[in-house]
Amino acid sequence: MAPDDAVELARRCAAALWAGDRASQALGMRLEHVAPGRATIAMRVRDDMVNGHGVCHGAFLVAIADSAFAFACNTYGEATVAAGLEVTFVTSARLGDDLVAEARERVRYGRSGLYDVTVRHIDGRVVAELRGRSYCLGRPILTATDGS
Amino acid sequence: MAPDDAVELARRCAAALWAGDRASQALGMRLEHVAPGRATIAMRVRDDMVNGHGVCHGAFLVAIADSAFAFACNTYGEATVAAGLEVTFVTSARLGDDLVAEARERVRYGRSGLYDVTVRHIDGRVVAELRGRSYCLGRPILTATDGS
Amino acid sequence: MAPDDAVELARRCAAALWAGDRASQALGMRLEHVAPGRATIAMRVRDDMVNGHGVCHGAFLVAIADSAFAFACNTYGEATVAAGLEVTFVTSARLGDDLVAEARERVRYGRSGLYDVTVRHIDGRVVAELRGRSYCLGRPILTATDGS
Amino acid sequence: MAPDDAVELARRCAAALWAGDRASQALGMRLEHVAPGRATIAMRVRDDMVNGHGVCHGAFLVAIADSAFAFACNTYGEATVAAGLEVTFVTSARLGDDLVAEARERVRYGRSGLYDVTVRHIDGRVVAELRGRSYCLGRPILTATDGS
Repeated sequence: MAPDDAVELARRCAAALWAGDRASQALGMRLEHVAPGRATIAMRVRDDMVNGHGVCHGAFLVAIADSAFAFACNTYGEATVAAGLEVTFVTSARLGDDLVAEARERVRYGRSGLYDVTVRHIDGRVVAELRGRSYCLGRPILTATDGS
Repeated sequence: MAPDDAVELARRCAAALWAGDRASQALGMRLEHVAPGRATIAMRVRDDMVNGHGVCHGAFLVAIADSAFAFACNTYGEATVAAGLEVTFVTSARLGDDLVAEARERVRYGRSGLYDVTVRHIDGRVVAELRGRSYCLGRPILTATDGS
Repeated sequence: MAPDDAVELARRCAAALWAGDRASQALGMRLEHVAPGRATIAMRVRDDMVNGHGVCHGAFLVAIADSAFAFACNTYGEATVAAGLEVTFVTSARLGDDLVAEARERVRYGRSGLYDVTVRHIDGRVVAELRGRSYCLGRPILTATDGS
Repeated sequence: MAPDDAVELARRCAAALWAGDRASQALGMRLEHVAPGRATIAMRVRDDMVNGHGVCHGAFLVAIADSAFAFACNTYGEATVAAGLEVTFVTSARLGDDLVAEARERVRYGRSGLYDVTVRHIDGRVVAELRGRSYCLGRPILTATDGS
């Protein structure tokens, strides 16, 4: 596949997935960038994501990272799911913080893949580091109706 | 500490944390059981937790497991945070499914601890297995106002 | 399969694997117990396993745990390999220490499985906690020559 | 610290650690490169590292990766240990294969750090991906006798 075609495929896959991803939408995420094996997502920490001390619940740090991982591993045209993930919490995020998660493919082998995701504050400080394990189901992401 | 006192301390810590945990409340979680080093949480998969195929976003499986982990590791009176976690997704959950996450302490050493959490369907089938790494901050969870 | 047959199958699989496992033998491991989904292995920390301070290199703690994991997940008659693992080092082991690794199956699903392994000192203190991810290749472990 | 001084410190730390690391030496490892937060180690798969099928035991893939991780995280002058690690096995290695493990620091925060290690065949194919979690003990690696 020509590089331009690979980028276009990645974008069309992302658009199709995003349209159906109520969860990421409901969390106020924005898909900022997608390319083959890569995706960047932004999210602001809301008041329903924090505990009593105003600190973001770890699950929402996982949520933004997991979504970036999901978009990155679904850029090749075949439906791919998360088999598992490992996350390390580096520093906390607080109410109102703007977070950015950047996912990059590390390696693919057979139907499996590894993706590294870094969640950062807008100023670059690392909030969390996630490594996701993907498994490709093999069925197509796009249908005849997902654009021409 | 006498066993009864340890159970009472666990309950008071959980009550104090739950009161401030807007995130777990907003996700519709119910804290069903707490004991020293253990906690059980229930949650129903809502329509804002699923993707276009009606399958629960992995981050919400992590959310229920992470909350059970958090309550389990905060039963000894000292504020304890998640340092990281590893999760394996075993089967999917769908819109309307009732999930139960049961966290058990595996080992504590120094300020660190490991907690195993199993997320199950109500019929017992395993949905996800999480292992959480905790770190104790050392400051008290309860204040003079958290009950007598 | 009757329980007795499952235990007998586990033992025959272990015997066949052990015969070819030069690595575990060369590390001085002893297979102490095997049952369906379970295995226990013992090993003494030798002087070629330690660093200059007499502390066992983490890789040998992984080695005993990984071997226990391998024997535990190969008890059902089909060749099964490690897809990955996560380990937490709890305390150190030193030259001459006798270690015991006990592996237990946590869950199997499709061709995948999770196994928890605890490495302990002989007095019960935890040295390391490992969680292994297995993948079943499907081909038989035993051949016509592996006993009657 | 000037960049040259940081590189010199890294080399002196590595030399001091290597001198005492009987385990890495006994496994036939060679420390090929070290720099602040980075290390590269080579190792050939020997006949006491394989099982009956000539496939390298996973623990030795962890061993080379763990050693690269250890040298990379001990380049700043303070003794640092492995708190845990996660590894994914990508492809197998066989008797006689030459392996190279390259460790790079991902992030440091407080006394903790994350290091990514890729183990490759000499032709570049990935064998395993490891992420190590380090903890700095704070005591100096070098003593007055470790060079001038």
